[in-house]
Amino acid sequence: MAVGVIATLKIQEGKNADFEEAFLGLAAKVKANEAGCNFYELHVSKSDPQEYKVLEQYASEADLAAHGQTDYFKEANMAMASLVAAAPHVEVLDSVE
Amino acid sequence: MAVGVIATLKIQEGKNADFEEAFLGLAAKVKANEAGCNFYELHVSKSDPQEYKVLEQYASEADLAAHGQTDYFKEANMAMASLVAAAPHVEVLDSVE
Repeated sequence: MAVGVIATLKIQEGKNADFEEAFLGLAAKVKANEAGCNFYELHVSKSDPQEYKVLEQYASEADLAAHGQTDYFKEANMAMASLVAAAPHVEVLDSVE
Repeated sequence: MAVGVIATLKIQEGKNADFEEAFLGLAAKVKANEAGCNFYELHVSKSDPQEYKVLEQYASEADLAAHGQTDYFKEANMAMASLVAAAPHVEVLDSVE
């Protein structure tokens, strides 16, 4: 069964461009390497420019787990740690098909 | 610019099967008819079986507006009105590309 993810990230003021560059680099690697990722799309709130939401879906729980274990994900997370204003909030959802 | 949507729907207890059937029928029509819809995927919370979240993305604001004006969307919304426990919460997000 597919799984969805809504990841909410609060970014420090003044760090938006750095964050977007880092995240979009990560997203490109996800799309190039993870056949089990159905979508992985960065969005920003219309009311709070510091609040980003990533809409994600994976073909299975195993594909989600594999995503989190990639070297490029771990590296991007470390790079983005200095840009976030708070710990990310990650909600995992069951797909209904 | 693409736009994302997170639609949160609280469904009355005992109405899950009716809701899922109605929503998946709608989703099939969206996918068959809306070239400007990038994804339209129903999910359910892991902690609250009455809480559903639809992850959506459209190629443009115009595509999102057109989605809401289709006869099948209006009909599905009317059919689902008797199944929801509260008014849906719809968050529209700007895509970052």
